[in-house]
Amino acid sequence: MAETMNAPTRATLERWRARMHDELHKSVIPFWMRHSLDREFGGYFNCLDRDGRRFDTKKHVWLQGRQVWMLSKLFNADRSSADLLEAATLGAKFLREHARRPDDQVYFCLARDGKPLTLQRKMYAACFYVMAFAEYARATGDASYRALALSQFDAILRWVDDPTPLGKPKLAGNVATSELAVPMILLNLVAELRGAPGSPTFHDRSDYDAIEQRCVAAIRRHHRPERGLVFETISADGKLLDSPEGRLINPGHVIECGWFLLDYARRTNDSKLRDEALAMIRGALDFGWDREFGGILYFLDSEGFSPQQLEWPMKLWWPHCEAIVALLMAWRDTSDASWFARFEQVADWTFAHFPDAEHGEWYGYLDRRGAVSQRFKGGPYKGCFHVPRALWLCERELAAALAAH
Amino acid sequence: MAETMNAPTRATLERWRARMHDELHKSVIPFWMRHSLDREFGGYFNCLDRDGRRFDTKKHVWLQGRQVWMLSKLFNADRSSADLLEAATLGAKFLREHARRPDDQVYFCLARDGKPLTLQRKMYAACFYVMAFAEYARATGDASYRALALSQFDAILRWVDDPTPLGKPKLAGNVATSELAVPMILLNLVAELRGAPGSPTFHDRSDYDAIEQRCVAAIRRHHRPERGLVFETISADGKLLDSPEGRLINPGHVIECGWFLLDYARRTNDSKLRDEALAMIRGALDFGWDREFGGILYFLDSEGFSPQQLEWPMKLWWPHCEAIVALLMAWRDTSDASWFARFEQVADWTFAHFPDAEHGEWYGYLDRRGAVSQRFKGGPYKGCFHVPRALWLCERELAAALAAH
Repeated sequence: MAETMNAPTRATLERWRARMHDELHKSVIPFWMRHSLDREFGGYFNCLDRDGRRFDTKKHVWLQGRQVWMLSKLFNADRSSADLLEAATLGAKFLREHARRPDDQVYFCLARDGKPLTLQRKMYAACFYVMAFAEYARATGDASYRALALSQFDAILRWVDDPTPLGKPKLAGNVATSELAVPMILLNLVAELRGAPGSPTFHDRSDYDAIEQRCVAAIRRHHRPERGLVFETISADGKLLDSPEGRLINPGHVIECGWFLLDYARRTNDSKLRDEALAMIRGALDFGWDREFGGILYFLDSEGFSPQQLEWPMKLWWPHCEAIVALLMAWRDTSDASWFARFEQVADWTFAHFPDAEHGEWYGYLDRRGAVSQRFKGGPYKGCFHVPRALWLCERELAAALAAH
Repeated sequence: MAETMNAPTRATLERWRARMHDELHKSVIPFWMRHSLDREFGGYFNCLDRDGRRFDTKKHVWLQGRQVWMLSKLFNADRSSADLLEAATLGAKFLREHARRPDDQVYFCLARDGKPLTLQRKMYAACFYVMAFAEYARATGDASYRALALSQFDAILRWVDDPTPLGKPKLAGNVATSELAVPMILLNLVAELRGAPGSPTFHDRSDYDAIEQRCVAAIRRHHRPERGLVFETISADGKLLDSPEGRLINPGHVIECGWFLLDYARRTNDSKLRDEALAMIRGALDFGWDREFGGILYFLDSEGFSPQQLEWPMKLWWPHCEAIVALLMAWRDTSDASWFARFEQVADWTFAHFPDAEHGEWYGYLDRRGAVSQRFKGGPYKGCFHVPRALWLCERELAAALAAH
């Protein structure tokens, strides 16, 4: 967009803030509070149809952990809602009792009663366990949860260096690679363990700075500024790989990573890193925005081949959630109104297509044209997380902008 | 369709036969012969873009085995093409050298040079290894390949009874289930090991009859005639499961299973089984046919929930391939012209949407409206198999019908 942008008016900011607030507190959180709590066995039902009806009783650990985190976070914001804390406790106790094995691996999916169903040979379930307990410990002051988070975090750090215990065999043809997801989620985990500035947390680890610096360096190796692209998978020595995995671009992931970096750059006053994060966000949005139907495409191949993922052209809720957060942060960090215009472009499309005014919460899976493809509100990978986190963070950004206006 | 159908005319049958023949020999097989043969390392490139250009050099074992099988099958039909046999040999030697481990597990994916890349904790790669070597042994008379097929088949039979060696852990919440895919592929494997009646094969196993009977009984337990549905996953004791897995309907899979049963019923003159297979095919097509845009939907939930598979509304090549085979067989087995009408409905949609007249072969992945979603001709799950097998079987059915006309 070449033309000079006008800065958003106070009324515009107020309107967006009210929209974020209302969507969060009148539609999204009520949906989960009404339909997801399992008072019989603990934990949350996370497979919920459009109207909240359960279509499965499985409990996916990513989403159990993320919901504990989200509810604790919202409770911690003003510590006024006993309902939120009680709901967070329901999930935290269930996770504590059932999710983790003696060898520190965390199950991917549990039965309603907590019996294990599946174990992935990956570390992500463990990451959401850490997030959950770090924030829940802050909500309750119960240091035993904090200790569980920290010991699990140590296991994750060990797996980053040597994933053998996760059980995925190393075969003769495998080349060592670096996955964007790993430094990205670690960077976010450290931010969560640190807690918000001034929050009642425990800044007791001397190695946080070093871990963060290592993560930022690792993320930057995935960025090719001259192409405006961040690659999901590169070789361990930092080279691009000419294969579908090596050419894979996941714009939503890059945009989410971008705001993790913006957040870190804010805390460390690193304007060079901020500018690189802005370039990553801009590049991902330029590459991933669907000029034909609007919205952010899910997967692309950097060289224009068809992605192997059958769902590549779909519009998923979470890249749009991450984009509205990233764009508001980019605008606040630069005072450049073109970022706000970009925010409004994405937010308008997002609010026009994802929310379900009738039953609350947002649809997760739209086809390329923006029609609902999967009507459920919660499933194995969608729960009480990206939507409320984005609404909460957007409201916070807008409130800060208004305060400074 | 209630109205009385007219039997197809001789000219109609001739026209379809010519179409199947030309598509197979002028478009599909030439594509693979031109683009897939790796004369440097052996085996086949199976990741091929629309125009045959390689977008990856990985070699997926399902597709290596299937291509060996298909080329051997076509060679065996008239034993005239030295090129086909030579191409089959390229794949057979590569598979023999690289695919199987000392413990009988078969890799899922190999690097170009044959080094192992991935191993699934499933038995399907091993099944295509058996198919390949059974037919290749018939093509060459080389009994060592036959011996490899039989020893691998024995390993598969052991895994059916006890999958522990495949390495998937059994967790406390898991309930024992029966998967349609297992008896279905075993039934097909026995047919392949037996070989076509009169072919130079080795009917040396006394247990084929018993295995087939066990498979047929197992498949029938997945069928609920009163609902017209065949469920992919049921409990080990034959009950429906109220979960997304338990409600999953894969119409293409049921239709493919249907013609495996028709083939078996022909060989055993079992008219009761034939009628059940016809009911399965009819039910799957009624349930899976997309009344809005045409074509067969990929996945459905028996109770109308949204399937969790993001690709559920896509139109994939293979269910359509299996359907045209099944419908021609159904027509030949019943002389009921309504089956031929159904064949023409599906075949018309299939030929209008999948073939690529410019570069040969068929597209594999269309969106719900029938537009090309993935332009590649070969990928991790699509190779030289469903399209040529269907064209070859359809031509055979039509030739038999014409001979009897």
